Amino acid sequence: MNRRHLFGAAAALLATLGLAGCKDDTAPAKQEAAAEAKTYQWKMVTTWPKNYPGLGTGAERLAERVKTMSNGRLTIKVYAAGELVPALEVFDSVSRGTAEIGHGAAYYWKGKVASAQFFTAVPFGLSTPEMNAWLTHGGGQALWDEAYAPFGVKPLAAGNSGMQMGGWYNKEINSLDDLKGLKIRMPGLGGEVLNRLGATTVNLPGGEVFTALQTGVIDATDWVSPYNDLAFGLHKAAKYYYYPGWQEPQAVIELLINQKAYDSLPADLQAILTEAARAATQDMLDDYVYNNALALDELKKQGTLLKRFPDEVLAAMRDESEKVLGELAAQSDLNGRIWASMQAFQAQVTPMHQLTEKELYNWR
Amino acid sequence: MNRRHLFGAAAALLATLGLAGCKDDTAPAKQEAAAEAKTYQWKMVTTWPKNYPGLGTGAERLAERVKTMSNGRLTIKVYAAGELVPALEVFDSVSRGTAEIGHGAAYYWKGKVASAQFFTAVPFGLSTPEMNAWLTHGGGQALWDEAYAPFGVKPLAAGNSGMQMGGWYNKEINSLDDLKGLKIRMPGLGGEVLNRLGATTVNLPGGEVFTALQTGVIDATDWVSPYNDLAFGLHKAAKYYYYPGWQEPQAVIELLINQKAYDSLPADLQAILTEAARAATQDMLDDYVYNNALALDELKKQGTLLKRFPDEVLAAMRDESEKVLGELAAQSDLNGRIWASMQAFQAQVTPMHQLTEKELYNWR
Repeated sequence: MNRRHLFGAAAALLATLGLAGCKDDTAPAKQEAAAEAKTYQWKMVTTWPKNYPGLGTGAERLAERVKTMSNGRLTIKVYAAGELVPALEVFDSVSRGTAEIGHGAAYYWKGKVASAQFFTAVPFGLSTPEMNAWLTHGGGQALWDEAYAPFGVKPLAAGNSGMQMGGWYNKEINSLDDLKGLKIRMPGLGGEVLNRLGATTVNLPGGEVFTALQTGVIDATDWVSPYNDLAFGLHKAAKYYYYPGWQEPQAVIELLINQKAYDSLPADLQAILTEAARAATQDMLDDYVYNNALALDELKKQGTLLKRFPDEVLAAMRDESEKVLGELAAQSDLNGRIWASMQAFQAQVTPMHQLTEKELYNWR
Repeated sequence: MNRRHLFGAAAALLATLGLAGCKDDTAPAKQEAAAEAKTYQWKMVTTWPKNYPGLGTGAERLAERVKTMSNGRLTIKVYAAGELVPALEVFDSVSRGTAEIGHGAAYYWKGKVASAQFFTAVPFGLSTPEMNAWLTHGGGQALWDEAYAPFGVKPLAAGNSGMQMGGWYNKEINSLDDLKGLKIRMPGLGGEVLNRLGATTVNLPGGEVFTALQTGVIDATDWVSPYNDLAFGLHKAAKYYYYPGWQEPQAVIELLINQKAYDSLPADLQAILTEAARAATQDMLDDYVYNNALALDELKKQGTLLKRFPDEVLAAMRDESEKVLGELAAQSDLNGRIWASMQAFQAQVTPMHQLTEKELYNWR
């Protein structure tokens, strides 16, 4: 018997007995009690296949923890991509309120919110700890809120994949010329950079990537990092695994919350949801650090050849990235303010990481 | 009027009216309700001065968020070092149950729990994301639990300072010889390493460090990183700010929970406390990434000279660190298992970070 029932019983009883003398004492309490006792059953639509390693499983853990922390007052049923809505309709679904909450990545919504592209990953941009700190201390969250507000959606960081890999290639990249004419599956800003360097990028849904790579319809594809790429079997369709993941030095996984639904929650459930998202940022990174390491070992065992993009190629990618981002920033006042804020933050935090993380990883 | 009062009123009413027919329906509900309505006022003792940047303020935010998430059912009053117990008695205080919860760093308890030294920072050891992943996925948490279990204390990671700096020096370190005879304030494993390299380390309480450095009683001191060091004024007592912080490539800030007090909480409050700690790990790192960057700028403005330990010196520090850690590992079966687990984890995760974070920070 849960609180709602108890309060129901108690209230009904008091009412039935018509104990007028008690009403003044208990009426406000009953109201408060009703608010506290109210339960919320939310639907979470996601951009991930069922039980997708790291990303989908992270969403499931977040929902489970919210349920436990709220003692069942806020339950979130997680739907894989396509179960309620297709992956790319998650933002609209949350905006309309069809689902109260969504789990995905901001750059999927670039067709609807051009500014969204800044909030997942920027080529040669902020590292994982820097991106998290920009959102919470550098003004990033306020800009993200501003970008989604017209759609009645509140965004929260709820995970990070950490730095990704450069992608799977069936042709070696020894110079800039080797990119020319290459057919590469790469969406977003990274894809635009490769186009400008002479490649032809295509955007294929996940389900078609493996076959396209195996049959030679594409010569290369980006994906995520060993944890996801191994599960996806890409090592069976490509010879070379290129690094570094210049296009995604980190990738924020986001929680999309319908603003009206969020506002309808009592303060404790709002806090539980917000802290669960913050905890999930840590939780998902732990998952990737560990499982990427195991998967990298397995890929090596299965014969994957690791290759590094030549400095000449990385330098050209970096120059083009700056141009592409500059043009995106010029598209709107908001884009301009977001990019200026990110660049200023990167300039601010880089010197400290030169003295610390850079030194540490160079000892290894 | 809170739930407890309401249930009191309702129960009293039902009882008074002697509605026997209702008793069977409401008795279990009343019991559950009583459990849910129970509030817990906890005391948190900490090793930090009042409002200590990053560490003390992080403890305050954690307590505030637990209060909000629990709708006031679990309130935690935070006490600075010395308010209830001295900093170094925090562990004992939580173990005895004088305080239900504590906030500090594991290596402060090395006199009582030799294994504790592994759970804050290890020279030349795991990075911040690696340490967090070792605790949650690499078996670290279970070993930490085992180390504290005899004292009835449950440890949780609840913050991280990120990588620290090498310390403040009034003499330049251009070769190993320059360390010989130097008086350095450095506790823990790092201090032991410096002793073996010919320095004489002393452990001074924070309050005495500044004067000792200014008056030449010591030639150098470690502290934390710009955020804390600037606030502490160390730049006014030393010329050179050395990097990298080889002795603390990261530093876990811990929550100590009295096991009996933890077990007395209902499942939802246990989950709120656990997730609040996980979220605090992210929250504190964000705070350090941002404020270290600002403080580093300010230190440069005030004339602090940044110096890097020569490779020859770092190499010797690294060799001695391995010996010191090997000896600590040999002291007990548990120490041996902890160190073997950490070393295996570092070997497992390092190759992936060579392809990712190392590349990223070298672009900068």
